[in-house]
Amino acid sequence: MLANRFLENPLVVQSMVKPSRPDFEVTCAFNAAAIKHNNETLLLLRVAERAIQTDGKVSVPVLNCEGETSVIEVIEFELSDPKTDYSDPRVVHYDEKPYLTTISHLRLARSKDGVNFIVDDTPFIMPDRPTEAYGVEDSRITKLGDTYYIQYKSVSYESSINVTLATTKDFITYEKGPIIFCPENLDVAIFPDKIDGKYVALHRPIPRQIGQPCMWLAYSPDLIHWGKHELIMQPRPGKWDSGRIGASAIPIKTEKGWLEIYHGATDSDVYCLGAVLLDIDNPAKIIARSEEAIIKPEAEYETSGFLPNVIFSCGATMEDDGDTINVYYGAADHITCGARFSMKEIFESLGV
Amino acid sequence: MLANRFLENPLVVQSMVKPSRPDFEVTCAFNAAAIKHNNETLLLLRVAERAIQTDGKVSVPVLNCEGETSVIEVIEFELSDPKTDYSDPRVVHYDEKPYLTTISHLRLARSKDGVNFIVDDTPFIMPDRPTEAYGVEDSRITKLGDTYYIQYKSVSYESSINVTLATTKDFITYEKGPIIFCPENLDVAIFPDKIDGKYVALHRPIPRQIGQPCMWLAYSPDLIHWGKHELIMQPRPGKWDSGRIGASAIPIKTEKGWLEIYHGATDSDVYCLGAVLLDIDNPAKIIARSEEAIIKPEAEYETSGFLPNVIFSCGATMEDDGDTINVYYGAADHITCGARFSMKEIFESLGV
Repeated sequence: MLANRFLENPLVVQSMVKPSRPDFEVTCAFNAAAIKHNNETLLLLRVAERAIQTDGKVSVPVLNCEGETSVIEVIEFELSDPKTDYSDPRVVHYDEKPYLTTISHLRLARSKDGVNFIVDDTPFIMPDRPTEAYGVEDSRITKLGDTYYIQYKSVSYESSINVTLATTKDFITYEKGPIIFCPENLDVAIFPDKIDGKYVALHRPIPRQIGQPCMWLAYSPDLIHWGKHELIMQPRPGKWDSGRIGASAIPIKTEKGWLEIYHGATDSDVYCLGAVLLDIDNPAKIIARSEEAIIKPEAEYETSGFLPNVIFSCGATMEDDGDTINVYYGAADHITCGARFSMKEIFESLGV
Repeated sequence: MLANRFLENPLVVQSMVKPSRPDFEVTCAFNAAAIKHNNETLLLLRVAERAIQTDGKVSVPVLNCEGETSVIEVIEFELSDPKTDYSDPRVVHYDEKPYLTTISHLRLARSKDGVNFIVDDTPFIMPDRPTEAYGVEDSRITKLGDTYYIQYKSVSYESSINVTLATTKDFITYEKGPIIFCPENLDVAIFPDKIDGKYVALHRPIPRQIGQPCMWLAYSPDLIHWGKHELIMQPRPGKWDSGRIGASAIPIKTEKGWLEIYHGATDSDVYCLGAVLLDIDNPAKIIARSEEAIIKPEAEYETSGFLPNVIFSCGATMEDDGDTINVYYGAADHITCGARFSMKEIFESLGV
């Protein structure tokens, strides 16, 4: 294994995060975008909260946008009601309509050393639109010029799973933009440079009737409108990424090409990370791809938890040495951990 | 019912279409785009072909793009092989991988009167890319300036179902462009005018984990890159469009708004057509929507056939009287029929 896990892991756990309101509790703080800004490492955490539960009932949080300002309402279902199906801890079905048991927002954690983080007391990006009725989730952050582009997953029953674009310059205020990738799509990672005059993004459509969850490229003149979609990577039968794959970190520009840390899951839902090297001028061209995962669930905090055997990253930062990559990841779908990699060692493992 | 079916129905049947090669037979000629060009009505038919079958086997056509020129290969499976699953007439599963039993191309049929059609002897648009390995299907045609934009469904096992853009000026030659809507998407209908300086399209993503097949809008600066995705219409429980909905014809610009003839299916897969009127300046705003279908499967050629109880349109033309709309549609998923509607009567049925 190429990964050197931080001795300080886990870096962020739910008890470090203040609930957004007194009747909620934080269940998970994970799948954070990572970026350096003003000599700090910022993590944009996905904070999942649920209503404090009452015996004999299950309560789900749903955003209501019907009034002048949107508000998260708590809907209660009786567990004894035969219409209530609570067999999956993440989803309640009532009368066959699914509700998520938690609602997520995005919150900043800040660190001077990239290891010891203090979590903001209040959310940064809250769900506040019908397309976000079930929450805003896993984000990535790309810096282009002096603007940070936040690509996040917006979830609702009506609109399914989309990717929305928000921007900030200071991580104090932000502006929410439109949906840039329509259902069902997630794991969008916008490259930190234009290529041949166009913005480029990795994305991961989820087909229903035919096809698998693969990694695609798209191009844009303006970061809002995307096209020229191109399938570039598929799951590989029998390997660590046999079930599905998707971008994790924002691609890192290197002398050998674009280095992308991506995630793959087996058919039995073990989530690992690997690396792929894409051609610097034509990122649809794959130069090399990890035969083995560069990190797989082994530590106790990865193999047990809310969803065991999950390592899922949404961001990494580079050290000034030009070789050390700090990969931040959600462990077991509930807490935030980190691991250091040497770029040189990753290249060696890729045979480049 | 507002529909006056053509007495000449069906207008195109498979026996009117010459196979693209001697070892193939045409099984269906349906779901045609429709447009007027040079005093002719053109239908761009979806022509489905299959290999002539041998007893005890099932043969499927698959495009192979590995050589210098792509070629449709015929793959044979033994019906006695336990890995062969041929329980659905449209799909063969071999070792769990799905293959379509037919492969479609797009072919022109031409008419002076909009009723009597002669089908070209040869295909217009053939599948010739990996993303089209299982064929090119249901198209729509939008005229913008002197160019016809053909939006068609491209299907393959690897890339799922996408929408690709091709252009022609003369219906003799064409240029294939990129994928404009990524998986899983279909039923794209580009508006025949810019709105507020942007191109606009209806599209129909198919979500997998959450959400329903709904109609969405997207905007584009250049017809290639699309964004600002917006859900505008959902299926309606208990109505003729309870199961799924999607654009059928290209929206018609009228004094009352954009008139869109769309299709809806019930949960039991009865496909009908209805109308929706969209605001002329903001097509995300729905002015009125058909409570009842404007045409539903009733004629014998609609209620029996390859897939009974399907009326599915990809195109309509306007008569010079400014009131008569000729809607062309696939009946029972295999032949092409037509019906006349009065725009005035459709507006009355919509209460506008």
